[in-house]
Amino acid sequence: MDIKQYMQGVGKRAREASRIMARTDTATKNQALLKIADLIIESQDKLLEANALDLAAAKTNDLDAALLDRLELTPERIKSMADGLRQVAELPDPIGEISAMEERPSGIKVGRMRVPLGVIGIIFESRPNVTADAAGLCLKSGNATILRGGSEAINSNQAIAACIKEGLLSCGLPGNAAQVIETTDRAAVGELLKMSEYVDVIIPRGGKGLIERVSKEARMPVIKHLDGICHVYIDDHADIDKAVKIAYNAKTQRYGTCNTMECLLVAENIAEPVLKKLAPLYEDAGVEIRGCDKSQKILPGITSASDEDYHTEYLAPIMSLRIVSGIEEAMNHIQEYGSNHTDAIVTEDQDNADRFIREVDSSSVMVNASTRFADGFEYGLGAEIGISTDKFHARGPVGLEGLTSQKYIVIGDGHIRE
Amino acid sequence: MDIKQYMQGVGKRAREASRIMARTDTATKNQALLKIADLIIESQDKLLEANALDLAAAKTNDLDAALLDRLELTPERIKSMADGLRQVAELPDPIGEISAMEERPSGIKVGRMRVPLGVIGIIFESRPNVTADAAGLCLKSGNATILRGGSEAINSNQAIAACIKEGLLSCGLPGNAAQVIETTDRAAVGELLKMSEYVDVIIPRGGKGLIERVSKEARMPVIKHLDGICHVYIDDHADIDKAVKIAYNAKTQRYGTCNTMECLLVAENIAEPVLKKLAPLYEDAGVEIRGCDKSQKILPGITSASDEDYHTEYLAPIMSLRIVSGIEEAMNHIQEYGSNHTDAIVTEDQDNADRFIREVDSSSVMVNASTRFADGFEYGLGAEIGISTDKFHARGPVGLEGLTSQKYIVIGDGHIRE
Repeated sequence: MDIKQYMQGVGKRAREASRIMARTDTATKNQALLKIADLIIESQDKLLEANALDLAAAKTNDLDAALLDRLELTPERIKSMADGLRQVAELPDPIGEISAMEERPSGIKVGRMRVPLGVIGIIFESRPNVTADAAGLCLKSGNATILRGGSEAINSNQAIAACIKEGLLSCGLPGNAAQVIETTDRAAVGELLKMSEYVDVIIPRGGKGLIERVSKEARMPVIKHLDGICHVYIDDHADIDKAVKIAYNAKTQRYGTCNTMECLLVAENIAEPVLKKLAPLYEDAGVEIRGCDKSQKILPGITSASDEDYHTEYLAPIMSLRIVSGIEEAMNHIQEYGSNHTDAIVTEDQDNADRFIREVDSSSVMVNASTRFADGFEYGLGAEIGISTDKFHARGPVGLEGLTSQKYIVIGDGHIRE
Repeated sequence: MDIKQYMQGVGKRAREASRIMARTDTATKNQALLKIADLIIESQDKLLEANALDLAAAKTNDLDAALLDRLELTPERIKSMADGLRQVAELPDPIGEISAMEERPSGIKVGRMRVPLGVIGIIFESRPNVTADAAGLCLKSGNATILRGGSEAINSNQAIAACIKEGLLSCGLPGNAAQVIETTDRAAVGELLKMSEYVDVIIPRGGKGLIERVSKEARMPVIKHLDGICHVYIDDHADIDKAVKIAYNAKTQRYGTCNTMECLLVAENIAEPVLKKLAPLYEDAGVEIRGCDKSQKILPGITSASDEDYHTEYLAPIMSLRIVSGIEEAMNHIQEYGSNHTDAIVTEDQDNADRFIREVDSSSVMVNASTRFADGFEYGLGAEIGISTDKFHARGPVGLEGLTSQKYIVIGDGHIRE
């Protein structure tokens, strides 16, 4: 197989399909989503068989337990894929939406119409459900998609792709509107990242190594976040009970997610009562605290935090802790060590809340809420294709709108420019 | 001078200044804009002196007349720079604007706040007024800017930069919020395009060579358009008078602008009466028509159009012409030869108008209006920093909003995720 030639073919077919998808009406797109959902349920046995091949290979290759878990399909996970597609069908269609047309002094009317981006490339690891989730969101937003899953999930992904293709074709849509790359050759990724004439944006979903490679090599825009070094800052004017609840939830509700708190900052004046309440809770949960000198005086048993700790996304029951003089030092710390993902302040002081919201340069900034809320579903986007910590185009959780653009439309009646 | 070290210093200072600009209130930003406008008027003699040096050097270097004209400052042009800054001061400030906060089922309130992009790099050629225009728009939108003008305008640009710096400082703002690169060494551009840690977006303004280089080398997003191969399509259902007026205006109102029509498409059924009226008008204006075989039968005197003609942005009194069977063929032609800039249909048929608007993939799509309207001022953006034909982030004329991003803000009252 000539990988370059194969990928060029994939790209060309995606571009052609994207033109048809861009003008497909909402009813047809929803019909296709529902049909794919039905086919996924009907194909449960086939999906489980394909998945069994992947699981067997993974075991032979000694993949670790966490990876095996992510790779596994179960009847519940298959149902949840189908449910996800049905939910996307229920979301409002952003395409074709026209902003208020405004009449200009010249007499022309000017507005903006929402349009698809075109072709979305998705590169992801292990979880086969991403195939259906991502293809569904791209389909609804009128885009074509090229999906490249992890080689360990190749059989599962192909089986899901077959359902998607059949669903598209049965509604008169191009089967190439969602293509899953059929080779596990890593060179295919390199080719995909070069094809800026066929791919309008790349969304990598996976570990830091993958995202770094994609950011470095891609010749087209990338929607991504690299790290989630999220902070909770407990201000001197915090309500201690709220502070304890939020700091505990932000760290312990789930350890492996990008919106989990990795570093707690506490104002000096309130540090003692807050930490005396929080530390036993963390201890019960088995969370290791790595703290600054001042915090070690209040909590003598904890480890010492290095500069590297403050730069670390643990994704584990470990957290760093620093006592700061107040909001100014807290914001400086976040600027220096943060990753522009999600940062929260706990305070009853409106001025400090306003300052934090305005000045902290993160994709989500929160007041008196757990960082764990930074999520497309929680924000009401209906679904999420990823989270962006960049400022260009989409920022924060990215739903259907992030997969679209707006063009200007101008309506005249023979108007010319004087 | 160590160019790399110098540019790193410029970048670092811009990043620091951008943090202060991001939290500067509207009144202070407007005060600075007005102060800079006053200083530009007061410094007229200094600006003309500096410009005289550039003009003298340009004449020695045998620059062509068009370039000399663009380079020249006059009292009127100086006044118009100052007026431009005063107009920007009057525009609404997009920064800090919060979209409707919506309460989610969890109880948190979620909204979006408009924030600056950070540091904007502008690379431009010859016209010194861009220094003031671009710095003004970046200042108003809370960004810091690094400006790199053409070497032929170095003295003029430095003189304008001095006014900007003094204006910023006199309002308590960082003088480094708008830095003009002080060296004409071309290596400085290469360094600028590499500094993705300090520069959030690059906007090249100039010829195709410049824009191609910037697109190729930039390690950060670029807001740009490469070509303006704009079409007017006269549909079979067009009003002939409107069609003639629009097609004439779109080509002849100005030849050198990116929204000038370069190719006219006419539906076969209406071609004869339309072209018989249009051709003499173009002839009087001295416009050369290069047409397809069918159009040569109606207008026997015209030149024959090659495939390359249809790919050409003439920026001159030359145009290509093709007779098409109808809207389908017109849209196919635009897709194949267009540059996604601005394309217009002239028609009285609502269905064809709707189809054209929806399906033509250009940054501006027009019905019964001249392509010459594709402009930030005409669209009511107040000003324009450039035009983007890309789909990512900003599309079409880019005003203040295109220099901003939106972050999510979340307000809770001790809310945690269950």
